[in-house]
Amino acid sequence: MARSYLDIKADIAAPATAPGRAALAVVRLSGPGAIALCSPCFSGRRALSALPGYSLAQGFFVDPASGERIDQVVVSVFRTPHSFTGEDSVEFSCHGSPAVVLRVLSVLESQGFVPALPGEFSFRAFVNGKADLVQAEAINELSGAFCETARQDALARLSGLLSSRLAAIRTNCLDLLAGIEARLDYPEDEGPEDEGAVRAGLLEMESSLVELSEGYAGSRLRREGALVVLAGRPNAGKSSLFNILVREERAIVSPEPGTTRDWIEAWMELGGYALRLVDTAGLRAADGGIEAEGVRRSLGLAEIADILVYLVDGRQKLSAVDDDFLAPRAGVLKVWNKIDDPACSPVPPEWIGLSSKTGAGIQSLKKVFLSRLGSGLPDTAARREAQVGLAGERQKLLVDRALDSVRKALSSLELAATLDVLALEMREAASFLGEITGEILGDEVLERIFGSFCLGK
Amino acid sequence: MARSYLDIKADIAAPATAPGRAALAVVRLSGPGAIALCSPCFSGRRALSALPGYSLAQGFFVDPASGERIDQVVVSVFRTPHSFTGEDSVEFSCHGSPAVVLRVLSVLESQGFVPALPGEFSFRAFVNGKADLVQAEAINELSGAFCETARQDALARLSGLLSSRLAAIRTNCLDLLAGIEARLDYPEDEGPEDEGAVRAGLLEMESSLVELSEGYAGSRLRREGALVVLAGRPNAGKSSLFNILVREERAIVSPEPGTTRDWIEAWMELGGYALRLVDTAGLRAADGGIEAEGVRRSLGLAEIADILVYLVDGRQKLSAVDDDFLAPRAGVLKVWNKIDDPACSPVPPEWIGLSSKTGAGIQSLKKVFLSRLGSGLPDTAARREAQVGLAGERQKLLVDRALDSVRKALSSLELAATLDVLALEMREAASFLGEITGEILGDEVLERIFGSFCLGK
Repeated sequence: MARSYLDIKADIAAPATAPGRAALAVVRLSGPGAIALCSPCFSGRRALSALPGYSLAQGFFVDPASGERIDQVVVSVFRTPHSFTGEDSVEFSCHGSPAVVLRVLSVLESQGFVPALPGEFSFRAFVNGKADLVQAEAINELSGAFCETARQDALARLSGLLSSRLAAIRTNCLDLLAGIEARLDYPEDEGPEDEGAVRAGLLEMESSLVELSEGYAGSRLRREGALVVLAGRPNAGKSSLFNILVREERAIVSPEPGTTRDWIEAWMELGGYALRLVDTAGLRAADGGIEAEGVRRSLGLAEIADILVYLVDGRQKLSAVDDDFLAPRAGVLKVWNKIDDPACSPVPPEWIGLSSKTGAGIQSLKKVFLSRLGSGLPDTAARREAQVGLAGERQKLLVDRALDSVRKALSSLELAATLDVLALEMREAASFLGEITGEILGDEVLERIFGSFCLGK
Repeated sequence: MARSYLDIKADIAAPATAPGRAALAVVRLSGPGAIALCSPCFSGRRALSALPGYSLAQGFFVDPASGERIDQVVVSVFRTPHSFTGEDSVEFSCHGSPAVVLRVLSVLESQGFVPALPGEFSFRAFVNGKADLVQAEAINELSGAFCETARQDALARLSGLLSSRLAAIRTNCLDLLAGIEARLDYPEDEGPEDEGAVRAGLLEMESSLVELSEGYAGSRLRREGALVVLAGRPNAGKSSLFNILVREERAIVSPEPGTTRDWIEAWMELGGYALRLVDTAGLRAADGGIEAEGVRRSLGLAEIADILVYLVDGRQKLSAVDDDFLAPRAGVLKVWNKIDDPACSPVPPEWIGLSSKTGAGIQSLKKVFLSRLGSGLPDTAARREAQVGLAGERQKLLVDRALDSVRKALSSLELAATLDVLALEMREAASFLGEITGEILGDEVLERIFGSFCLGK
């Protein structure tokens, strides 16, 4: 039978560091009995159960059944409520060997620990009021952050910046609602000045929610990175441009394991943003009629690109192939390549001149990339805070629903609907906002959210 | 200019956990100024520099230049000499994101830390007398251990079991040497009983060294795993056997990243041993004349196998192909497959009957594997200790050299050579033994040894 996140009496254990050979690996434990249960597994100068919170001890991790020493470890003890989960917690810092971690976990299971579910530590932090749902999601995000913008935003959300923005909107909503409900109870107190205040309050809510909703696209780019697709006819110089960009900027490891594809791609970081740069090899052979499947897929990639770059060889006239590609597509970033060659025609307006041979024009191209992506890495804390937006489709969906309710309330006000209709719509808005930070949430929804987290988190 | 391990005044920093997305990642610092240098990077309730050794604190890792918060962290402080390296040391437990680790390391570099060389933390532990060379090598081994036998042996060596065995032999040698040198200084005291004592002492040394040297092969299997190669004609049932074994035993992750090969292989754990099981796909097509390169490589693999298994289809007569393979090879484990089939001939003597269809005979085959590998996982601490042998070619080479010197000394004694010849040979033996644990060792040798360790270790 599958365990439930709601089984918060269970003492849980999981590896907390990435698998693989390394100097150290950390195994994390939490639960009401965590310290007592793992105490027999530690042999040091002092008993583990006697260690105060926020202290470390060096010793051996042993199998209490046989007395066998499994590894030399450093143990960290955290006592409730001063821990990540809010419960008694223990971390064993072991040698980073798969065999060690496996044995440690198996001994802990014999002691009564159960393997933690993904995100179960964060779930307990949430349940024990150490983090709201937006912050718990930010913890998981932070572990997956593979570029600077993602790290910055996740940390800002973890610090509660988004939560407090949402709380302010919700408080505003609940205050207005309280006023309306008072008027429902005591209709004789009603006055025209109240309606004006409600409208002003709703308009303020609307504008805050619109800001969050519209900022989501940029927020997504900052978190997930941007897809930059290089397209063009054969020999336009796509591969040379690809190589220059990859060489100049810091290469980053792909957030997903690679798979065989019909194109060449690399992840790089530019101004803090992760860029997935794709050289659509498939398009190269488009006019040859071969690799039809590859061409189809590459064109598909061009459609979903955050930035679509189209290169031409500036020594040649624009051809029908170029026109066919450019005509139906808005917002293509057009690059006039080979400006180093005397045979190159002058760069037409709206095109960016470039030499993928000498590198001339590359800096301008990068500036255009960054201006398309957004403001990039802010230089002050205040700007960073202003930029903190929504993370993930769940948050976006709920903000849009709240916005929808607020707009319904505004039009009810316009149409002079009854106060109880208005109250209903505002209660809905408050409820959607409460769901984002987890104030109001069903158990099933919670389990689904935390189930998508990584293990040991 | 490359840094040197001998630059022990430098404050060093390195990631200590495996790269990749995870709940936690640890960044490790050590050096005489480590605590002071990183103190401005920590913002918590108490200043980092005020924390006592073996204590933890929760807070933010910040960039002191801009005040920007990089991550929420837990910091561990260790004060000299009570740390792994013996120096002041700090560990930041961050969120397991590549972007976080990168920024933390880059901020630390601005503070004056230098990136640690591979094994540099262990080198400092060695220099500061926290571990001898055999123990330092065991720490590195333990991080790489991917099976139970490897973990057990490495931990025993880390606990000093091998070091004390070697120290006992060396002390014995130095005691005998002291006696001989006294006789060189005062020849008048010589008596025939002294020669007997020296011979007895040398014989005891010889037998201890032979035990270590001969145990090395088993020790290597326990550490590195055993190569088990399945060979046979097409349709002998190699792939079915391969699949049964891989399915029944615990799969383990390869200690080296995989590369494209001409055969199918999988790592599994059997009785604590890591087995690299290879189905020589190449041999299958041997008689077809195709895949000649694959066949050549597969045959090469068969030559270096720790256990070579040869399967035949028991329903068919042994063919010339079988005889050609078996005749020149001693110690092949011969398996008579398909005993489930009524058409199968009786299992001949020296063959193991098996059905890779029903699984009959698999348990017997596994027992034979284990008996070939050695005693496997000992059930008591005493047996575990008795089994601790040499780790690595360096240790083996030096033990063999010491053994060689002891044998020369024995034959000098036999040939009634002068005492100073005997003394020279025994000094040599003592010196080789001292080199193993690092008592006597040049800087270059040390740098080479620690340079092979993993980073953050």
